[in-house]
Amino acid sequence: MLTMPTRYNWLKLQQFCQQVFQKAGVPAGSAAIVAESLIQADLRGVDSHGVVRTPIYLKRVEKNMIDPFAEVEIVSESNATILIDGHNNFGAVIGMNALTLALGKAEQNGAAIVGVKGSNHFGTGAYYAMKAIERDMILLVMSNASQTMPPTGGVRPFIGTNPLAVGVPSNEELPYILDMATSVVARGKIIVSAQKGEDIPFGWAIDKEGNPTTDAQAALEGSVLPLGGAKGYGISMFIDILSGVLTGAGFGKYVNNMYENWNEPQNVGHLFIAVDIKRFLPVEHFKARMDQYIREIKREPKAPGVEEILIPGEIEHRRTVERKKNGIELPVQVVKELDAIGRSYGVSLAEAACQNYSNEESA
Amino acid sequence: MLTMPTRYNWLKLQQFCQQVFQKAGVPAGSAAIVAESLIQADLRGVDSHGVVRTPIYLKRVEKNMIDPFAEVEIVSESNATILIDGHNNFGAVIGMNALTLALGKAEQNGAAIVGVKGSNHFGTGAYYAMKAIERDMILLVMSNASQTMPPTGGVRPFIGTNPLAVGVPSNEELPYILDMATSVVARGKIIVSAQKGEDIPFGWAIDKEGNPTTDAQAALEGSVLPLGGAKGYGISMFIDILSGVLTGAGFGKYVNNMYENWNEPQNVGHLFIAVDIKRFLPVEHFKARMDQYIREIKREPKAPGVEEILIPGEIEHRRTVERKKNGIELPVQVVKELDAIGRSYGVSLAEAACQNYSNEESA
Repeated sequence: MLTMPTRYNWLKLQQFCQQVFQKAGVPAGSAAIVAESLIQADLRGVDSHGVVRTPIYLKRVEKNMIDPFAEVEIVSESNATILIDGHNNFGAVIGMNALTLALGKAEQNGAAIVGVKGSNHFGTGAYYAMKAIERDMILLVMSNASQTMPPTGGVRPFIGTNPLAVGVPSNEELPYILDMATSVVARGKIIVSAQKGEDIPFGWAIDKEGNPTTDAQAALEGSVLPLGGAKGYGISMFIDILSGVLTGAGFGKYVNNMYENWNEPQNVGHLFIAVDIKRFLPVEHFKARMDQYIREIKREPKAPGVEEILIPGEIEHRRTVERKKNGIELPVQVVKELDAIGRSYGVSLAEAACQNYSNEESA
Repeated sequence: MLTMPTRYNWLKLQQFCQQVFQKAGVPAGSAAIVAESLIQADLRGVDSHGVVRTPIYLKRVEKNMIDPFAEVEIVSESNATILIDGHNNFGAVIGMNALTLALGKAEQNGAAIVGVKGSNHFGTGAYYAMKAIERDMILLVMSNASQTMPPTGGVRPFIGTNPLAVGVPSNEELPYILDMATSVVARGKIIVSAQKGEDIPFGWAIDKEGNPTTDAQAALEGSVLPLGGAKGYGISMFIDILSGVLTGAGFGKYVNNMYENWNEPQNVGHLFIAVDIKRFLPVEHFKARMDQYIREIKREPKAPGVEEILIPGEIEHRRTVERKKNGIELPVQVVKELDAIGRSYGVSLAEAACQNYSNEESA
């Protein structure tokens, strides 16, 4: 049996995903958004949110747990706010709608807060932050998620690792792009430690009785902890409040798990806050201040063993440049899954493979 | 020499502070705001931000480093944004102006973002969050601060422990009030450990060469670390960007230290985000959802040794009830300082003392 290639041209891989979604019945525009959102995550090195999610997204469409034809509805609107009901379309499609509305309203009125209910997993927050940055806007975006973390003092998952992303444009320096889960570490890191039979550091997780543990397997049966103890619990909680309680979406246990619940839509909620920079400072002046700020941070003296001080989004930018040039390396298991999906829809994954890494052009 | 009382009636102590500020030339309305802001911190148990700050605030007025007569100016305004220049009045006075403008504009337009430059230390964020809650508004408020934490990989302080506060009303349950610095712990905890000759946990601080340390004294000569490693660094940085870079206030090293810099105003920046709940859900419906959310969290099974699961602001609420009833206990050193200040302005601290703890009425 021939070995399947594991390195893929980012744009061809995006086209592959887009075509698969289209063949599965997703409208072309939506398929393009979802595919772009996944590939942007892979390019930035956030592999957990990349094309690895194609199978689960497709399966939820096939099982009628995502409705790719749903109309995103504006439920209520004021000068500075919009509430939208995604009616269970793809999270990324609903998210792009929310972002577009937020940026447009911020352009008109200086700032806008768009709440979203009836949504699904919306990919990475950075995807939206980068698009806001292109429009010279500052974006704060947050989402709730299904239960993975206990409240401080609790034993079992109650809140999600509810992510927060913030994007801010600069001029000559890289833009500031923070995109973080509110857990100490991604659960994926604990899975890796368990697979290797290694201990995890104290403070990452608790076992299923609620005791702190360094045993990776016990941690997987227990819960990952919020970052910074009670502070992370508090941050995750207000993200749930703003994304879920305020919008009419699910919150706490009412945000359904994408992998486990096949009876109901997820009912994820999001909140987008867009700020029109020019209402505060002329954009060029603001960007010059950002450049100065970033340069001053990066020029700070470094701790022993540290080569460079980085700003949020800098590593991800470098990975994007590298992966656009050299391709996206996928785990064999992911390749097999995507290949099987491609075959079932008559779309060739092999055509997206990098033919020659060193000569591969970046698009 | 007679022993001075150390326990004070909260309202009389607030009146004492207000009178001292007035005698020092601060207009009555401003004196009332600053005094209330300090006492609210003491009541909630955030003693570091309470009446202990009276001497430094007064000293900065006396040295012309705070201008209690400055007019807070609206620099620019749109439907959903305002930029104000505090022109170096008290932080709490400017903050209350910003809050009032934010709540009014959110009432009109659904949401408002108010940026502030030319300000000073504004007390606790919870002070503003509680006032927003009384108006059925959600408030996010942040401020930058003078340098205390290194960027991840750095050696010396560059960013402040830039605080973030969020307030959300509920109905029968306590409101959600998060008010946190973006450091692992307050520097005050390290000072206490150093005084006791105790080690501090790994991860709280680095020494002045940038090495992780458990030596409290070495930590004090070094820097306290952001919460959650790079995540806290990222959060603290966007607070600095939104509060300082965006508003035209200081950022990074341009936010001056209240205790050390006697040549220039602090030029602190803040950002207030007010959200009018009723633009998303009817207020009573939202509050019922908050009650449900809080009850569900508090009913979660508890880890070994945990008596109760708390929500952000719950401990502070209990302290407030207790201190309103039993008085605010002040360290002897603080009593001596306040007494000396009172004498110099002809205001009696002794009159604010609790006469009889058990019969003391709460006002």
